[in-house]
Amino acid sequence: MPTSSSSRASSERWHDPGRHGDVVICVLAGGVGAAKLLRGLQQIVDPSSIVAIVNVGDDTVLHGLHVSADLDTVTYTLAGEINPETGWGLREETWQAMTVLRRYGGPAWFNLGDRDLGTHLYRTTRLRDGAPLSTVTAEIAAAWGVGVQIVPVTDDRLETRVTVADEGEIGFQEYFVRRRHDVAVTSVRFDGATSCRPAPGVLDAITGADHLIVAPSNPIVSIDPVLAVPGVREAVEARRHRNVAVSPIVGDAALKGPADRMLRELGHESSAAGIARLYAALAARLVIDTVDAHHADAVHDAGIEPVVTDTMMVDDLRAAAVARNVMAAFA
Amino acid sequence: MPTSSSSRASSERWHDPGRHGDVVICVLAGGVGAAKLLRGLQQIVDPSSIVAIVNVGDDTVLHGLHVSADLDTVTYTLAGEINPETGWGLREETWQAMTVLRRYGGPAWFNLGDRDLGTHLYRTTRLRDGAPLSTVTAEIAAAWGVGVQIVPVTDDRLETRVTVADEGEIGFQEYFVRRRHDVAVTSVRFDGATSCRPAPGVLDAITGADHLIVAPSNPIVSIDPVLAVPGVREAVEARRHRNVAVSPIVGDAALKGPADRMLRELGHESSAAGIARLYAALAARLVIDTVDAHHADAVHDAGIEPVVTDTMMVDDLRAAAVARNVMAAFA
Repeated sequence: MPTSSSSRASSERWHDPGRHGDVVICVLAGGVGAAKLLRGLQQIVDPSSIVAIVNVGDDTVLHGLHVSADLDTVTYTLAGEINPETGWGLREETWQAMTVLRRYGGPAWFNLGDRDLGTHLYRTTRLRDGAPLSTVTAEIAAAWGVGVQIVPVTDDRLETRVTVADEGEIGFQEYFVRRRHDVAVTSVRFDGATSCRPAPGVLDAITGADHLIVAPSNPIVSIDPVLAVPGVREAVEARRHRNVAVSPIVGDAALKGPADRMLRELGHESSAAGIARLYAALAARLVIDTVDAHHADAVHDAGIEPVVTDTMMVDDLRAAAVARNVMAAFA
Repeated sequence: MPTSSSSRASSERWHDPGRHGDVVICVLAGGVGAAKLLRGLQQIVDPSSIVAIVNVGDDTVLHGLHVSADLDTVTYTLAGEINPETGWGLREETWQAMTVLRRYGGPAWFNLGDRDLGTHLYRTTRLRDGAPLSTVTAEIAAAWGVGVQIVPVTDDRLETRVTVADEGEIGFQEYFVRRRHDVAVTSVRFDGATSCRPAPGVLDAITGADHLIVAPSNPIVSIDPVLAVPGVREAVEARRHRNVAVSPIVGDAALKGPADRMLRELGHESSAAGIARLYAALAARLVIDTVDAHHADAVHDAGIEPVVTDTMMVDDLRAAAVARNVMAAFA
């Protein structure tokens, strides 16, 4: 935990242009929950002092286009351009391409909005030209005027594969979107995890950050693939005493997505205490929601200090308040 | 030329469901000019008795998507869905994806409409799944209710490459769209032409058709790549006496595109007579526009019989009239 003098130094550095080398806040991030917390942080500190290290296990190639679900959710949210109705994709979206694709009977289970397609066209072209995903991600973020540094955890292939009852192993988006995560999961693995390397700056950001936050994302399919990249888990654990995790489980349920069900199916407990057991090696403190105050002792017993506070981020204003609560957990 | 009895037999067969094996009219086709003539033919005979053998030398991969410019122009035109303002793409088009792509500074010289993207997404997915282009093309045409059989000349890679002054060799769409064909051409070649094979049914359609029409398309970059597929030119020339070509040059100019300029730059004459010299081995008769009546003798001298008639297809009604004029040239 920073001393008060180093805290002051940090505060000053929050107003400097951030580089990976002197990042103040590093956030391990999945999609929606992480994006909301980052949106909150963005309002209370200099955005350039924040680095989001984002899961790419959900990335997929659809119709030849490289789709980075979590990177886009984070970028669009920080740009203030996220579609408020869907929680993913862009505002003021239209669906002309999908309508024509459906006319052909084409595989239309993954909805690609017309505006969103612009992002996928750009990313695909740049990747085909040989640009690393981290470079392309930075270009896209810059084009939306996002000051937060958004970094894919790896530029290499890392593919979350989900084994589901009856069907065997399928891709993450096939599980998540096509089957609407309405099927039992028996195991999850990250293909490519042994050979992929952290993207440039990832380990430096983790190691050098004053504060590291494990965002309220699905621990199994958002945070775990980030940690699966060689060197990342070790770097995070090595600074455990300066890390704060935020529970994605509130009132024993996931706020969004299948984290609760998935935790139970894979033998964990869907509660703040269950998260505590998963994260005890990663962080010194676990922010849990006020509704989960009764889990505080169990969290403590799991070896991670509970910080009970409001974590509900229903709008930008509440996201900023929660971000303040999370930053206060470092004190 | 068909006898009157075989003509009668043909008329009857025009009302049968067409298969490649008993096609009545086979049209060698490029983009806009061919599409208009096919639109005319579609109105005057049973569409299923028409096979359009379409150039794919213009096909290109953009942002990871397989774009088949001429196939789409023919399909959309026959579906009555062509964008009347642009002459390519779909009606009631929007440009949301391109607007976002431009925000990123992405390569946006090739305009992809949102609706049109639905076609490219479908085609790309099917090709990646291993379906041949001819199958995918038939699926797309069927989805639009197009009765004409639209067949790419080959399922294999055939790539029109254009050498332009100053820059060297570039892809066709880079020449045509990116440089707006506003640059001198010194040579054209068809990469893949030695190894590609005609798509299933192509040679049968050419050989078996009662009538073969060389559509009013660019002879150098639309018709030549069709003929460059091994076996096609031979099959066309072998039935020369039953073939009619339609001049794409009217009043010594191309109605659309760079055919006139390209002809001159490559040492040909941009006139009906110049077309006659190029097509004398392919067809017995050349339909030329009434404004080119003064070229009739030169056409004859080139070894192909001129048929002077109206060839201007400004709308569907006129396209049907021109189609009748072209069919009359077989008599």
